[in-house]
Amino acid sequence: MTELPLAPLKRILKEAGATRISDEAVVELAKVLEEYGAEIGKEASKYANHAGRKTVRAEDIQMVIK
Amino acid sequence: MTELPLAPLKRILKEAGATRISDEAVVELAKVLEEYGAEIGKEASKYANHAGRKTVRAEDIQMVIK
Repeated sequence: MTELPLAPLKRILKEAGATRISDEAVVELAKVLEEYGAEIGKEASKYANHAGRKTVRAEDIQMVIK
Repeated sequence: MTELPLAPLKRILKEAGATRISDEAVVELAKVLEEYGAEIGKEASKYANHAGRKTVRAEDIQMVIK
């Protein structure tokens, strides 16, 4: 089971140009994005801590993907 | 507005170790993941077309992130 709902992910794939999409492809995308999100979360927490904060802010997320 | 719902993204950040998370940070993560998802979708569609298929399959998604 994935944390992210599949319907919006399918919409994102459609908007990106996919004509048809298998259910497995949507689940695969959910897994990829969740793993990437978790990685970003780990790094962003480090940046927040480093800045003496307990709250992760948008700037921490931006810092990670730079 | 983002396509992805924010609650599951907040959970992903919490599970990744964030103690507290600003609402803006969750929206930022949603944007990042949607852009990444759209990029993956574009590439995966190319792979599907290249393989003579109209349907994007899980293997196309996997091919993109390799």
